[in-house]
This record gives sequence, structure tokens and C-alpha cells, in this order.
Amino acid sequence: MLHTDLATRAYNQGWRLDPIVRSLLDTDFYKLLMLQMIWRRHPQVDATFELINRSRTVRLADVIPESELRAQLDHVRSLRFTRRELIWLAGNTFYGREQMFAPEFLAWLAQVQLPDYELSRQDGQYLLRFHGPWMLTTLWEIPALAIVNELRVRSTLQGRGRFALDVTYARAKARLWDKLERLRRLPDLVLSDFGTRRRHSFLWQRWCVEALKEGLGERFIGTSNVLIAMESDLEAIGTNAHELPMVMAALADGDEALRAAPYRVLDDWRELYSGNLLVVLPDAFGTAAFLRDAPDWVADWTGFRPDSLPPIEAGEQVLRFWRERGRDPREKLLIFSDGMDVDSIERTYHHFHGKVRMSFGWGTNLTNDFRGCAPFASDQLDPISLVCKVTSANGRPAVKLSDNPAKATGDPAEIARYLRVFGGEGRSEAPVVV
Amino acid sequence: MLHTDLATRAYNQGWRLDPIVRSLLDTDFYKLLMLQMIWRRHPQVDATFELINRSRTVRLADVIPESELRAQLDHVRSLRFTRRELIWLAGNTFYGREQMFAPEFLAWLAQVQLPDYELSRQDGQYLLRFHGPWMLTTLWEIPALAIVNELRVRSTLQGRGRFALDVTYARAKARLWDKLERLRRLPDLVLSDFGTRRRHSFLWQRWCVEALKEGLGERFIGTSNVLIAMESDLEAIGTNAHELPMVMAALADGDEALRAAPYRVLDDWRELYSGNLLVVLPDAFGTAAFLRDAPDWVADWTGFRPDSLPPIEAGEQVLRFWRERGRDPREKLLIFSDGMDVDSIERTYHHFHGKVRMSFGWGTNLTNDFRGCAPFASDQLDPISLVCKVTSANGRPAVKLSDNPAKATGDPAEIARYLRVFGGEGRSEAPVVV
Repeated sequence: MLHTDLATRAYNQGWRLDPIVRSLLDTDFYKLLMLQMIWRRHPQVDATFELINRSRTVRLADVIPESELRAQLDHVRSLRFTRRELIWLAGNTFYGREQMFAPEFLAWLAQVQLPDYELSRQDGQYLLRFHGPWMLTTLWEIPALAIVNELRVRSTLQGRGRFALDVTYARAKARLWDKLERLRRLPDLVLSDFGTRRRHSFLWQRWCVEALKEGLGERFIGTSNVLIAMESDLEAIGTNAHELPMVMAALADGDEALRAAPYRVLDDWRELYSGNLLVVLPDAFGTAAFLRDAPDWVADWTGFRPDSLPPIEAGEQVLRFWRERGRDPREKLLIFSDGMDVDSIERTYHHFHGKVRMSFGWGTNLTNDFRGCAPFASDQLDPISLVCKVTSANGRPAVKLSDNPAKATGDPAEIARYLRVFGGEGRSEAPVVV
Repeated sequence: MLHTDLATRAYNQGWRLDPIVRSLLDTDFYKLLMLQMIWRRHPQVDATFELINRSRTVRLADVIPESELRAQLDHVRSLRFTRRELIWLAGNTFYGREQMFAPEFLAWLAQVQLPDYELSRQDGQYLLRFHGPWMLTTLWEIPALAIVNELRVRSTLQGRGRFALDVTYARAKARLWDKLERLRRLPDLVLSDFGTRRRHSFLWQRWCVEALKEGLGERFIGTSNVLIAMESDLEAIGTNAHELPMVMAALADGDEALRAAPYRVLDDWRELYSGNLLVVLPDAFGTAAFLRDAPDWVADWTGFRPDSLPPIEAGEQVLRFWRERGRDPREKLLIFSDGMDVDSIERTYHHFHGKVRMSFGWGTNLTNDFRGCAPFASDQLDPISLVCKVTSANGRPAVKLSDNPAKATGDPAEIARYLRVFGGEGRSEAPVVV
């Protein structure tokens, strides 16, 4: 029987736009947790976010039509948090805790619209900047990244044969399932999806998450993507990110306040979330400096998420810190989320198994591993290292040092000042692939 | 947007049957070529066909519900050649020749209905027999095999998760495309699809054929499946099969007539098709005997399709024959179609390249290679060695010796007589996988 649904066909022919981001919940959970803190404590702070393509050889402005980029960004500006989304945020438990979000915060969220963007081109790259209140511009980070990544994918797939596309996805599915079968052999694995920002596409991320759910069972604890967590009835995962210490450091007056900024952020966080969500991100200005100068209460926090050194080296550094401060690592948690893939997850798991609790945030190599999958010879589906970083706060430059100088961002003079304040101890250059 | 086409949904819920065979053209092309000869020269001959599962450990009757098997077989009996199918058979060229099928043959074909079947069970196997005029029962072979194979697949996939199914097909697609990428490296490859009878399913065969078309380009010359050839505008490929010499041998009176039967078939064939389609299938009663006793004109035929010895050994045997008879193999054709897969195609191609023209008929390992593809541990998708053979003609037992005793069929006493007449020269036992 040949049957074509004429209405569907006509609808498909007439799309104005196939939106990449269809909901303001299509973002990472930590953005909302951080947003509540920004909204409560720093509503007057302005912050600028900026797209940075660390993979310079990929000339995004030559690949992605500007009109499409604008159409997608404009579409995000038309979105609002919907009633059922806000009800879910209000009624759901997060990390076992009820009412993680205050009613007055959700009331404010209901009327949020993302601010305008600035878009221009230079040397084959897009200059994409978001100016305005921090509590609004912060919401641009994830949609902007997801849009640019998916538009690059769409441009690569544009005009390919039905068959080439079919084989591409078949191979990517087969590869992901092979990875899951390897991960399934790690009995105490605790893993979540962190792949929103650099995903191949929204639909592919959702497929990957469903795959993890079916393939890993209890080992899969949830996703950082709030929309997918809601729709698939999964835990939303995440705590905080570099932008908090970066903005606090930028606003700090003088070197002493700068040195204290990372700990002040943690203290505010602990207070706001009543002692929940106590995960430390130690590497904004170098992990070694952070641990060296840390007040003792930092060792009482539940865990650390090292984010720029190789995972075993980074984990051992934190274990030494806990032991020196007299804490038992077996009661502590390490979250590994920097460019992880099955090989490094297996190595890290076996290295730390029995020594410390572990959790893995699997990102780009989960939701965007199409390397070699296309039957047309092409590296245009390989992931790139794209970030969207806060570059200034109230007009003052923001800086990230990182443990890996290749991941540092900010004005060179300002980086030099930060290095003077925090010291360059333990930093070592490594290639950044994703 | 959530949109469900309610009519489609209701239709899907209410299927009486999802037919496996939807057209009488869903068969191998050689069946139609042979049928024209049977219809013209042997319309009075009765022939019995019988399903034989050489993979005894697979208890088909325990796997496939009898009611479903009956429903599918009954559905085939409800089919007729349609007008557009007959018009295509009349108007298309085959092997470059117009009017391959006579108008009076097509007129007869228009009213053909497949005869009834006999179905019972024994020791976990189905006994499935087709009695009646040879020119009708011959049409049962391919649909019967396709139905039993696909019902086994459906039974295995029944009730599996959406995800398990998705990964199964993703892996099978990825595997097939990897095979194609290897085959693409053979510049003079000539290959066709011979996979109808043992396909995973009709839709999968069609996917495979489309894959070959896109992936191999000119190297892919067509398919044995007439329906797919018509729908995909491909060449229909095939000439003749063992059933011709088997029936002629069964009908032969006395040992001398038996010995002459294989050559009489060829002579009739050459005459009917005016010197086209001159491909010899030499192994019905042993290739060595066939070549030893062959009249010289057999060496004038275009090519041979060895079907039971290992391909290089079989090909060399035919090359020796041609050279002994003073023919240049470089002007001749060898068609390899016995359980071929990429490894054996590559080996055979390299061995014979430059020595003889070659063509490959890729069957079960093209259209039914799901080994290890399912995420549920299961060999239930592995292909089995299922055949549907003529077992008697006009009440006299039919026999196939083959070069491989594991592929012999027929009554043991009759096999002994054939071995006495033809000799057992050159036969050697090898496992039959597909």
C-alpha cells in the first residue's frame, strides 16, 4: 500500500525553521542552580559571554550561513519557560531534595527572555557576544553552543544522499552501543550524560540518553540536560561551573580579594543550598594553588570535579589533599567530566576503584562521536572544541587559568596578574580535542 | 509538535497480516526463465518440491507458529501476476535481449495461481510439500524459503525493545557498508544480489540492494529478485538451476538416458533461448563427471556457475576443462554464488583476475548477515541452511549428488544408483553453513 499523509507532507515542505533549541529547559542543570545564586546575590552584575572556537582550523563562518545562525538565535529569544516546565522545576526533587528552587525565583524565571546578541565575522570565525545582566546572559551559553554545533552538522549533512545519512547514523549507533557494552562490564560504574553543549544534535543526544538508560540500567544516573531529564523521567545532574569563580574574581578589588574569591564562592554556594550540592570545581585558577590555599572546611565538601588535568593525575592530587587534611577519600566523591571516553573511563575507574567514590560525566564523546562514521570521507562531523565563556563582569576582564594553559581564557595582561597571584604551580599544557 | 496520523495508527493496529511475499515477482529471475522452458516443453510433468532444513539443530516448528506459517502461505496463494508486472516482463530487455518471454507464455502466466501445500510437523521440523504440475510447484520454492526464513526472524524479534531492534539494524547496516567499502577496492568487480531465498526479510533485502547500488555503482550489475529489479530499475540476473537436470534425470529411462540427461537439458535451453543465457551449472551430479563426459559444444557456452566446491578449486577445474578443449578462458565467464562473502570474493577475485571473466552472486551473506548484531545474546538471527528441492517427478524420485555430499538430496538407494552411473570422482565433504 502506498500511502502518504498529505497534511504531514505539506507541513514538512513549508517549515519556516527546524529549531535546534525548542525549550529554555534545553540547557545544563547547573546553569539553573547557578542562576538562582546569581539572581539572589548578584542581580546587579553585568556579564559578557563570548563564543570561543579553540579549533581555529575549522572556519565556522565559512561553514554556517549567517542567516541560519541568526534565525536559530532569534528563535531562542522567542522562547519562555512554560508553565509545565516551571511546575516540574517546582515539584520535582533534585538530588533527593525538595523545593530546590524558591517560588520567587521561579516566578521571576517565568518572565525571563534571553537578551539580544551581537554577531559579526572575522577571519572565518563568528564573533558572537552576549551583553547584559549576568542573570540573563548566563542562559545563552548552552543554547549558543548547541546551535553552532548543530548548524555545523546540518551544513555538513546538507544535500547528502538518503543512504549516506542512513549509514552515518547506523555506524554512530553501532559504535555507541559497543561503548555501552564495554562500560557495562564495570559493575560499580556511576555515569551521567554531560553532552548537551557539544552534541551532534538534540535528537541524537536524546537517542544517546535513551541508549544509556536501556544499556546501562542503574549505572546510568541521569543527564545534565534539564529538558531530557524531565521528558525521560531521569535525574537532572550538575552543580556549578567556572563562571562563578571567574566573575567573582573579576569583581574582586585587589590581589587579596582575588585570592579569596574562589572560596567566597563556595561559601555562598553552601549557604544558598543549605549544605547540599557540595561539589568543588578546583581548577579555575589552578588546582594546586586552590588546594594549597584552601580553608580546612573545603575538605568537608562531598566531592571535587577536576576539569583540566588528566583524570588520574587530577584525582590523585585531590586524594592527597583529603589525606593531608585527615579525611578518608573512601567517603568522598570524584566527578570526572573532562573529555572522557570509554578508554579513559575504564582506566580511571580501575585506578580509583575502592579508593574513592567516583562518578563520570560523559560529554562530547558520548553525544558527538561521529568520527569516521560518514561514508563520504569527511572530518566535518568530528567534534570541535567550542566554548562560550564569560569574558567580563561589570566591565572588568574575566579570566580562567585552568590547569591546562591551552584551556586558559582572558586578556593576556590579566592572565599574567592572575598567575602572579595564584602561582603557576602544577599547570601543564596538553592538547584540547573536545 | 506532537502529531499522530490517526488513520495510519488505526490501520497499523488492525493489520490482519503483514505479508512477507507481496508479489509473485518476488522470486528469483531464473525461476521465470526455467518456468518458460517447463511450460513449453514439460507441461505434463508433475513435480514435488519439499522444504529441507539442513540446520537440524534449529527446530523451526518450535520457533514459528503454524498458524502464521499457514497465513503467509495462504496469502501467496491469493496472489496473481498483476498487469503492470506482466507488461514489464513483456516490455523489458533482459541481458540485452528483447521479448525474452513469449506473449503466449505471459498470457498463461496471467492466470497462474500457486497450488495448495501440505504442512505437518515432525521432530520439531515442518514437513512442507508442494505437489502438482511442475510449472506451478516450481513457483513455490522461493516464496516458501523467504517465508520460513522471515517468520523465524519475526519470531526472534517479537517483543524486543524498540532500542534493541534499532541497534540490531544499525549494526547490520554498518557491517554491510564496511563490506561494500572493501569490495569497492576491487576495480573490475562484477557483482549481483542472489539473496532472495535466505534473506532476513524483504525490506532488508531491498535495503541491501539499494546499498549495493549506491555503494558499488557500476560494479553492481543487478539482482536476482525480479520485483526489486523492476521497482529499482535494475537488471534481473539469473539463468537456470539444479531442478532442470534433476527432473530430467528422474524422468530418464535407464542409466544411459540418465547419463545423457544433463546435456539434453543444456541443449533444450540453448534452443529455447536462441543461444542466449548460456551458463552451465555443472555440479548437479558431480562436476568432474559432468566435464569428463561433456560433448564438445559445452565448451562453447559462455560460462559456468560452479555451486558446491570451494570457489578457487571449482574455477580451476573449469579452466582446465576449457584449456583441454582448446578454448581461451579469458573469453569465458565464471559465476561464483555458493555461500560467498567478502573474504572469499576477495580471494577468488585476486586468484582469477586476468585469467577469466568473473561475476559474483552474493546471497545469504549479503541479505542475512546479522550474526552478533542483536544486543540480546542470540544466534537466532544467524542464517540457516534451508532449501526447497524437487524430490520427485511424475512419481519418480529426484536426486542431487552435488560435489559436496553434505548438499546431496534424495533417496539413499537412488543416490547410490546415480553414484554408480556418474561416479563419485572429485566429490568432497565440506560443512554447509548457508
